[in-house]
Amino acid sequence: MPDATPLPPTDPGRHLTDPTTRSALRIQQHLLSAAREFLRGRGFTELLPPIIGPVTDPGARGSKQVDIDFYGHRYKLMTSAILYKQASLLAFDKIFCIAPNVRLEPLETAGTSRHLAEFHQLDVEAAGASRDDAVRLAEELVVHIVGSTVRELPKEFAELGRDPQAFADLLKGSFGRVRHAEAVAELRGIGHPQSLDAELDWEGEALLSARRDRPFFVTDYPKGSRGFYDREHPQDPGLLRNFDLLAPEGYGELCSGSQRTNDYAEIVTRMRETGENPQKYRWYLDLVREGVPASAGFGIGVERLTRYVAGLDAVWQASAFPKVAGVVSP
Amino acid sequence: MPDATPLPPTDPGRHLTDPTTRSALRIQQHLLSAAREFLRGRGFTELLPPIIGPVTDPGARGSKQVDIDFYGHRYKLMTSAILYKQASLLAFDKIFCIAPNVRLEPLETAGTSRHLAEFHQLDVEAAGASRDDAVRLAEELVVHIVGSTVRELPKEFAELGRDPQAFADLLKGSFGRVRHAEAVAELRGIGHPQSLDAELDWEGEALLSARRDRPFFVTDYPKGSRGFYDREHPQDPGLLRNFDLLAPEGYGELCSGSQRTNDYAEIVTRMRETGENPQKYRWYLDLVREGVPASAGFGIGVERLTRYVAGLDAVWQASAFPKVAGVVSP
Repeated sequence: MPDATPLPPTDPGRHLTDPTTRSALRIQQHLLSAAREFLRGRGFTELLPPIIGPVTDPGARGSKQVDIDFYGHRYKLMTSAILYKQASLLAFDKIFCIAPNVRLEPLETAGTSRHLAEFHQLDVEAAGASRDDAVRLAEELVVHIVGSTVRELPKEFAELGRDPQAFADLLKGSFGRVRHAEAVAELRGIGHPQSLDAELDWEGEALLSARRDRPFFVTDYPKGSRGFYDREHPQDPGLLRNFDLLAPEGYGELCSGSQRTNDYAEIVTRMRETGENPQKYRWYLDLVREGVPASAGFGIGVERLTRYVAGLDAVWQASAFPKVAGVVSP
Repeated sequence: MPDATPLPPTDPGRHLTDPTTRSALRIQQHLLSAAREFLRGRGFTELLPPIIGPVTDPGARGSKQVDIDFYGHRYKLMTSAILYKQASLLAFDKIFCIAPNVRLEPLETAGTSRHLAEFHQLDVEAAGASRDDAVRLAEELVVHIVGSTVRELPKEFAELGRDPQAFADLLKGSFGRVRHAEAVAELRGIGHPQSLDAELDWEGEALLSARRDRPFFVTDYPKGSRGFYDREHPQDPGLLRNFDLLAPEGYGELCSGSQRTNDYAEIVTRMRETGENPQKYRWYLDLVREGVPASAGFGIGVERLTRYVAGLDAVWQASAFPKVAGVVSP
């Protein structure tokens, strides 16, 4: 498991000229190029989503949204592209985007080595897809882009001291799948207290991650732990048709996804259950009432994926100008 | 010249399902793919720049910056990537990025059909390059990506009613170059009052643009009209080593660029001359004092380029979720 590391360097010049930064950024860009190639080959259209808007994803656990004043109207910086992903399916059946997000994470995350206040997501959404379609697509995408990067950038892996053999099992695919309830049982079995009704905590994710040799999916998280847009199991109320993809070696979460709710009444109910005021979501709810396609999709944290592939001690090493909670930096 | 059009549709569903939107967005994505291919072929490395930071580009004429509260510190949304482009040259000699920018344009721009409050730029910067290197690169880039799009997307041009012959002259390259002083003389010659000491006004740009059959460069703008980072002519003080690229047919500005100032004392002087407080730019000035490479580069407005290539009446038609001054929309 990677060591905890200190805060990002206060000297941006030193960070930018560090060979580790250069190699990590080259790996990041190759991962993104390979992802574009893969997704286009599957018929996905790339889009440029907004970064400001009247409302944003409320589902980011523990973090605060950023307000801005847009000509006298209170707007938000995007915490994720979820609302725009669903809406964009009106234009194209399969879409993806690579865009920045801002989440004011709690101050205590500054030293976790896995949180950035500003980061990027590779977001994917497909009309008519099921949760399991999205899981399969995420696995194939990760196998493709990691495989391509390992093949094409041997010098960068050597520079970083990252053994490409770390991905031998990943490249075989067949990522494990464990339901949230099973993951909770596994954690309790090794002495880690974990609530059945809540998101896995960071330590629990890291413990599961350290026991695997390749990325693995955790599925069927309980309602209450996630945003209103994750579809509930019709036969298993209280559970959601969603998933996370966790990296092995203790690197933790890489990706979150789900089948989406596209039923107006259900969304309004779920908003109320999660403490959200439907009035705020007017443009989104108006579109949903007119009809948006059923869909499934996911978002991959670009810097977190880069950290895992490059074998970095901290996620901030995967950003040219990293921002962590509470620290002033470029 | 394109007609003036009304405000963006208040119904996002109608905009997203409009065949014009779909074709315009496909053209936009092809332009960006072709740009990535071209720039990588020339040895440029793509980067993901920040969208928030302690300070941003003050050079955006007439528009206001957006403040945010970053853990008690006043940050800005990026109006351009210029400061990060110069800094990134410490990591790589040639870089580019495609990123969102936010500029609160004056309310009266809502109906100009050429302004968005949120837009994207394709930003390019090369260490050791001169202004003329940047001009040549911008021309070759535009010829390559427009040529590729015309060849590969005939259906989209047909759907939009845009005759690919509109680009016959563009594809020959050899874009015209006119110095700012010559452009002023030309405008005065056709009865348009234009100050020699100021940026060309919108109407002047459109008049010049309507008289050309392919994109053309305007160079050597006067000091005072541009940001502190444009390098001054050593032999011709008061003039800057910069340029704009304007589209023909009245579509106006596509791109702005310059050779950059990288001398600490000169930058501080230029900041003071342009009314900027150097204290605000601490991280940037600290880096410049330690040394950043001499460079030149440019930024292409992605939606404006898309508008020109797709032959759209208004720039908002080149965005899936357009935002114009003062109008609340997704």
